[in-house]
Amino acid sequence: MNWEDNVRKVVPYTPGEQPKDKVIKLNTNENPYPPAPKVRDILNNFDISDMRKYPPPDADVLVNAIAERYNVKPERIFVGVGSDDVISMAFMTFFNSEKPILFPDITYSFYDVWADVYRIPYQTKPLTADFRINPDDYKCENGGIIFPNPNAPTGVLESVDMIEDIVKSNPDSVVMIDEAYIDFGGKSCLELTEKYENLLVIQTFSKSRSMAGMRIGFATGNEKLIKYMNDVKFSVNSYTMNILTQICGAEAVKDEKYFTDTVNKIINTRERSKIKLKELGFEFPDSMSNFIFARPLKKPAQYVFEELKKRKIFVRYWNKPIIKDYLRITVGTDEEMNTLFDALEAILNG
Amino acid sequence: MNWEDNVRKVVPYTPGEQPKDKVIKLNTNENPYPPAPKVRDILNNFDISDMRKYPPPDADVLVNAIAERYNVKPERIFVGVGSDDVISMAFMTFFNSEKPILFPDITYSFYDVWADVYRIPYQTKPLTADFRINPDDYKCENGGIIFPNPNAPTGVLESVDMIEDIVKSNPDSVVMIDEAYIDFGGKSCLELTEKYENLLVIQTFSKSRSMAGMRIGFATGNEKLIKYMNDVKFSVNSYTMNILTQICGAEAVKDEKYFTDTVNKIINTRERSKIKLKELGFEFPDSMSNFIFARPLKKPAQYVFEELKKRKIFVRYWNKPIIKDYLRITVGTDEEMNTLFDALEAILNG
Repeated sequence: MNWEDNVRKVVPYTPGEQPKDKVIKLNTNENPYPPAPKVRDILNNFDISDMRKYPPPDADVLVNAIAERYNVKPERIFVGVGSDDVISMAFMTFFNSEKPILFPDITYSFYDVWADVYRIPYQTKPLTADFRINPDDYKCENGGIIFPNPNAPTGVLESVDMIEDIVKSNPDSVVMIDEAYIDFGGKSCLELTEKYENLLVIQTFSKSRSMAGMRIGFATGNEKLIKYMNDVKFSVNSYTMNILTQICGAEAVKDEKYFTDTVNKIINTRERSKIKLKELGFEFPDSMSNFIFARPLKKPAQYVFEELKKRKIFVRYWNKPIIKDYLRITVGTDEEMNTLFDALEAILNG
Repeated sequence: MNWEDNVRKVVPYTPGEQPKDKVIKLNTNENPYPPAPKVRDILNNFDISDMRKYPPPDADVLVNAIAERYNVKPERIFVGVGSDDVISMAFMTFFNSEKPILFPDITYSFYDVWADVYRIPYQTKPLTADFRINPDDYKCENGGIIFPNPNAPTGVLESVDMIEDIVKSNPDSVVMIDEAYIDFGGKSCLELTEKYENLLVIQTFSKSRSMAGMRIGFATGNEKLIKYMNDVKFSVNSYTMNILTQICGAEAVKDEKYFTDTVNKIINTRERSKIKLKELGFEFPDSMSNFIFARPLKKPAQYVFEELKKRKIFVRYWNKPIIKDYLRITVGTDEEMNTLFDALEAILNG
């Protein structure tokens, strides 16, 4: 035997490409607009000698700003280094049953990765033919439940009532709703956390708040859930969020007008893009997120993906069962989308 | 049963106090000097619209800067969100044996916390009466080995030869040396990583580089070790280090002159402080770190700790066996130390 026998061996998640050249990047669901302008002032006024001190371990400035914005007590907010950190910590904290956790077969591709790394048994439930979640699939014995709403990479939104039905049916499991894309027209189930102590709702600053580069995610739940998560977090790393991220994030969440304007611009571009994509011969489930999961009817998806790449336009493609005929296209600026549509016109009808 | 039955319940680590008032803070081994001055330029020149994009997941700018400074290939460097993140990830990656991992009874108080949260069996080995590590204690069957060098909270340095002896005797285990404090006069065992594939050396920007607030740690080892750690890291969270930390850290590590000057100032203050503490009636093991682990002979340590706190001077005290007669005093500026010595004079001899 040797030291390699005791290594945790995993197949890591492959993130979307981050090309360094100048390209049109519609492949990782980033926001095309900058974050709230006052974030610049935070950087200007920051005294770099404050870097020498450990950051507040409870990230209180950021937690309080989020709590105020969402009108909940700070004790009901957990913050982490992106929603990936929040969800991964939640898996570790809450998914310790011998029973399998449940999530859809078509969903965010990190859930099975976390389950593998933490050795959590899991079982996937197929979406319906039109990419909907069937709540009855989530009423069997399980060790926990997670899905995004709107779902990824489909963009399909489920109702708060349907989520309540699942949460209510599973008092013995923690149900996590990953609302990374909820701000683009969906209704959050955050208020259900007042009523159900087994519900954790996760959101992120990476999409609607244009801060993917800063790494901020948060979870809302009842105080007990949040306390358990903080206990685990403080056992792994007390100081996960650096000081600049804490204060930039707190500033960003205060600018409600900029947030609403930015989100509305993206929603308008998305709706215009739906019309245009239909004209170009795509079909897609209706999206309530900042991306469209669209299937080109005239040419194979992989071919379109590669042709777009040649033209320096990046979208996301997975060569996997069920979804291999689709492209996930992030909603960029109107100008970026026009360039995309011109390219698609040439590729599909040229 | 209910959802709480499957919660991972842990006793979290308690970090040193981070008082918000103006105090003399000698309790968390922070550097009293600001980080390299050019870090200010990085913030001034940063385009906040770059926050909207995900950061490079491999943190290549920072990895390359560290690799260049330490003259190793980038494939041999792993970076994380502080050395806590690096070590916690290393525990998860390498400590998967049924046999206990080994570390000293008096050491960094996070090792048993990580072992507990990851359910890794462990066994502690007593330090000698003068706080030394006995290498023979680490030559039994084990699932891995970790200790800091210099050790915390004692500040005692062990030799590279002694570490080589332990690494050579344990080809079936990964040996981790936590060199958080090595830059304050110790000799790193980093070059042993060329020779032994089971050795991982961990360092941090939090102490000698004045960047605790930014959260940067790194590990050096052979390419295989680093690859395994990256696989696990990418399975937990692909984007852990935000963009500002990556570029500020890369800039900081380039300024070798500032680094040397700062470290030398701290070493000079430490040596002067040793003389002064002896005069004041303290005894302590010789420290090669940025703190002194000192035992007041005239009054109980806890009393001195509390009296200092009343005077708004924070040092660290643990009410635990063996070390309950000691205070861990971070080396601050000369001015801060003078204030401390005046207060100690009043408390001990007043």
